[in-house]
Amino acid sequence: MCGEMEILNVGNELLIGKIENTNAQWLAKQATSMSILVKRITVVRDDVDETATAIREILKRKPQFIVTTGGLGPTFDDKTLESIAKALRRKLEVNEKALQMIREKYLAYTAETGKQISELTPPRIKMATIPEKAEVIQNPVGTAPAVKIDLKETVLIALPGVPMEMEAIFKKSVLPLLAQASNGAAYAEDSIFVDDIMESILAPLIDQTMRDNPGIYVKSHPRGAENMPHIEIHLSTTAANKQEAEDKIRKALIPLSDSIQRHQGRVLSKNQFKV
Amino acid sequence: MCGEMEILNVGNELLIGKIENTNAQWLAKQATSMSILVKRITVVRDDVDETATAIREILKRKPQFIVTTGGLGPTFDDKTLESIAKALRRKLEVNEKALQMIREKYLAYTAETGKQISELTPPRIKMATIPEKAEVIQNPVGTAPAVKIDLKETVLIALPGVPMEMEAIFKKSVLPLLAQASNGAAYAEDSIFVDDIMESILAPLIDQTMRDNPGIYVKSHPRGAENMPHIEIHLSTTAANKQEAEDKIRKALIPLSDSIQRHQGRVLSKNQFKV
Repeated sequence: MCGEMEILNVGNELLIGKIENTNAQWLAKQATSMSILVKRITVVRDDVDETATAIREILKRKPQFIVTTGGLGPTFDDKTLESIAKALRRKLEVNEKALQMIREKYLAYTAETGKQISELTPPRIKMATIPEKAEVIQNPVGTAPAVKIDLKETVLIALPGVPMEMEAIFKKSVLPLLAQASNGAAYAEDSIFVDDIMESILAPLIDQTMRDNPGIYVKSHPRGAENMPHIEIHLSTTAANKQEAEDKIRKALIPLSDSIQRHQGRVLSKNQFKV
Repeated sequence: MCGEMEILNVGNELLIGKIENTNAQWLAKQATSMSILVKRITVVRDDVDETATAIREILKRKPQFIVTTGGLGPTFDDKTLESIAKALRRKLEVNEKALQMIREKYLAYTAETGKQISELTPPRIKMATIPEKAEVIQNPVGTAPAVKIDLKETVLIALPGVPMEMEAIFKKSVLPLLAQASNGAAYAEDSIFVDDIMESILAPLIDQTMRDNPGIYVKSHPRGAENMPHIEIHLSTTAANKQEAEDKIRKALIPLSDSIQRHQGRVLSKNQFKV
């Protein structure tokens, strides 16, 4: 892997179990596909001290990227930018570029709806109030701009929590940064699906595969129970390019399948495998 | 809220985005329904140092409960118990009670299948190898037992990652501990669903509702876009009992609905609200 990332999701709704943390999974998948190693995901409440503390802890671990989601909107509990300012000991200031982006959004909404809704009220100015020396990133879908801060060892990127907005900004403005960091390196993965072999019997076969194929990570995911084994075995690796990564996976898969069959395991095709 | 909890999910599959972290959401919902405040969710890789570090960090924050998921099985990358031992500076030992539970499982599997599969191989003994001075919790569904460790200010509970097993153990052996901690206190929540009012216009109405109703938390969840507002407003609270909690919510909901309508917002019934 080339470069490390941590994800920080801010939002009470995640900690009361109201909402699935789809943002974390989506970001993790995107980063992994670019050969960026996601080392940790942290979820905190809408609380300035707790969020600022979490950011300081992450910064101490020096990942190349921190991506936060949530807390950029107009309501009282949108506190991520205030938390980042606190963590970095920077002032919050109304950013003229952000304010201009927001002004244009509400002028456009006014034009669309015919209603007079363009006034820059305090909740709207709040969305343009960001830590000093930060870069504003255009939100192509929603209203609140995203924020990027270049620190000594880490690039911190604050994205909105609404998935559609988060994904659009990530693809347009964050993916190119990851691509640069990964420098063409590629990730590859594949799974085999097996029945009739217990995970405790698989364990040494997996160990052997990892010993024989350095750089390949193999993990079993039981989908049934130990006595009714129904297991996905997932292989993953990174390499200098896609072709090389896929070849490494293929090279490991074949002897692993053979040894599973020698132990009376039944290797299924993907469409025979039902969870 | 009565008592705090942190959740630690262990597993590479969560950090490569392969698997949704449904365990975190499920646990958060269960704890919240018992009036236990979930303060943080942390997701780490299958790595002893990283997991042990995360556990030490959580212990420093002194939550009443830590619940971990994943890493209790028979394969090389099931490292949670080793990580806990490291974090607590305790020895790992083969626990006789755990070993007996595992022995019985494999004898039962042998009886069920007619195959000789009861030998206590190293991967199976591994599942009984736990930190010293820990309590073993029976797994009513799967093979690997869960583990409970009473520390000075925190109860640490290690659950398996397979959702069916995790949920069964939690309901049987963890929920009663939470119930005791919450001492009958109850959580209540409700939502109103609104169209045609921007989140930036809602913001001060939400502030007012929270000022008028101490202990009520109100959060807007935009499901559309600022210019096509389609918003869920979620109210939550805790109180000494369920009735009182529900009354508090009702008392806050009515004036909030009124003020939204005064601002030309359209309050929808739940089945009119489509994401």
